[in-house]
Amino acid sequence: MIIGILGAGSWGSALANLLAGNGHDVTVWSIDEKEIEMLNTYREQRDRLPGVHLNETITFTTDLEQTIKGKKMIVCAVPSPFIRSTAKKIAPYITNDQLIVNVSKGIEEATLTPIVEIIESEIPGAKVAVLSGPSHAEEVGIGIPTTVVAGARDMDTAKLIQNTFMNDVFRVYTSTDVTGIELGGSVKNVIALAAGITDGLGFGDNTKAALMTRGMAEILRLGTAMGAHVETLAGLSGMGDLIVTCTSKHSRNRNAGYLIGQGKSYKEAMAEVKMVVEGVYSAKATLKLAKKYGVDMPIVEEVNKVLFEGKPAREAVVDLLTRDRKAEISVEE
Amino acid sequence: MIIGILGAGSWGSALANLLAGNGHDVTVWSIDEKEIEMLNTYREQRDRLPGVHLNETITFTTDLEQTIKGKKMIVCAVPSPFIRSTAKKIAPYITNDQLIVNVSKGIEEATLTPIVEIIESEIPGAKVAVLSGPSHAEEVGIGIPTTVVAGARDMDTAKLIQNTFMNDVFRVYTSTDVTGIELGGSVKNVIALAAGITDGLGFGDNTKAALMTRGMAEILRLGTAMGAHVETLAGLSGMGDLIVTCTSKHSRNRNAGYLIGQGKSYKEAMAEVKMVVEGVYSAKATLKLAKKYGVDMPIVEEVNKVLFEGKPAREAVVDLLTRDRKAEISVEE
Repeated sequence: MIIGILGAGSWGSALANLLAGNGHDVTVWSIDEKEIEMLNTYREQRDRLPGVHLNETITFTTDLEQTIKGKKMIVCAVPSPFIRSTAKKIAPYITNDQLIVNVSKGIEEATLTPIVEIIESEIPGAKVAVLSGPSHAEEVGIGIPTTVVAGARDMDTAKLIQNTFMNDVFRVYTSTDVTGIELGGSVKNVIALAAGITDGLGFGDNTKAALMTRGMAEILRLGTAMGAHVETLAGLSGMGDLIVTCTSKHSRNRNAGYLIGQGKSYKEAMAEVKMVVEGVYSAKATLKLAKKYGVDMPIVEEVNKVLFEGKPAREAVVDLLTRDRKAEISVEE
Repeated sequence: MIIGILGAGSWGSALANLLAGNGHDVTVWSIDEKEIEMLNTYREQRDRLPGVHLNETITFTTDLEQTIKGKKMIVCAVPSPFIRSTAKKIAPYITNDQLIVNVSKGIEEATLTPIVEIIESEIPGAKVAVLSGPSHAEEVGIGIPTTVVAGARDMDTAKLIQNTFMNDVFRVYTSTDVTGIELGGSVKNVIALAAGITDGLGFGDNTKAALMTRGMAEILRLGTAMGAHVETLAGLSGMGDLIVTCTSKHSRNRNAGYLIGQGKSYKEAMAEVKMVVEGVYSAKATLKLAKKYGVDMPIVEEVNKVLFEGKPAREAVVDLLTRDRKAEISVEE
């Protein structure tokens, strides 16, 4: 298949390499001329995916039109804050026979829409799907067995994505629950910030496991209120991605949370992690969604207070504990 | 409250210290004279909970009758393989006004019963409950915030346990789903062996998160077939304990799995971990339960093959992957 990839960061590069390895014809676009020069010179994303040699057949370009025209599939690996502007830019080139596969995570604060819907709204008539799951680029890049979900409004499209990405070490399941996949993938980043914060404060594995369990309950409450399926939220793109994002050393959201737990502001933490920390962008949107759908999300609430209202991280965690004691309502009952 | 604790290992010692710190009168029994001598001499469980000074008010004894008689609550912290024999031994001393709280995890292979039921069957008329959750003794011993569930057939008993154990850093929720609590706590040890095996084989965080998600699905399938509540299995004593057991450096099940992944037999791994590895005992029982209730538990099946049939660990993991590819059935759909 002839495929265009938008975004040459760690995930865009890892997927380009995977798809080229599967025998597809791959063109990767970045807005950043220096990045494209680096990729053409070294065939390595030295800043964001160092050590992974990228397939010789991949074309790297700053020409957006060239990346879109004549491609059967467009993989959108642009960070969430730049999705809408990128969708606007590609809209003139997209034809209705092309499939756009979003591989980024996030919810837009202004509109409270996840990424597939943003693209659909900017490119009316476009066919848009999603690929998500516990899949750190650093591991996919070196062929570590990874399992993800392809979600589309119709099963045939999901299966087309499955067939395109699947290989021995990259297993793809199919689903039609696009909302559930996108929601789980976005909200887990906010919970991962909280998990990182407890690590940064020096709390233990017991504390973090309890927080992740409560976080999963928050995801389930919001997701089901929004019509997502429990099976999706409890599956690879929900619980699976929550686990990897809260526990892996590769997780930028967890690592940013860790720095915040150690007393840094979210801006300082983002500067130090040197990558887009999606959870910071999704935190406000998730809280707004919780209010809109009338569900209780105490962890998401406290993360927002720490990020944007200057609440000390330790106080936020203590408040989460105290809240529970006061209420004396069992989560189990 | 006057409390007797059976078992002076890491968990028995940590809970003795917690309860004494809460102001209770605590007596701890061990069958091992040398262990009791060490505890009396140093007030420290030097082998299994080093570095934690145990409260001066705790009485350590090898006298079983003294540990039971006149106590309001008996905490049973004996490893699962010794539960039935211990229950037989204490039966003559137990009176019906005493509450027995099991804090061990496991399913007896011969009878396929979890621990509370074993005790109930050996001591007819006894009131037996359970305390479970993501709670490594090493962290509870040093006051790291920890959250668990107290489960009893009636809510008043669960609340009594909650009031006895609860403090600022040890939070206790209540539940009446005793089966769900015990099942989640036991089966997660088998999944943790598998998680350790993938770590030992050198697979990554993506792989382990996928395996844990699949493991959770297996726990949910078996648990609901046995009448456990989904909320319990997805709560602290199920998902929470699964997470901590699969990811923490303190987890003996995960650590034993790691050694097995590196090519050791389960006997060698147990010798090296130097503690009872509950998952090894629960593996066969869980597989039998799966067959009895007609549910599919491929991870549990492969763990059994690796432990008891000499199947190479790498082959087992590959078979889990291949099985999924063959089936091409989505877990999400």
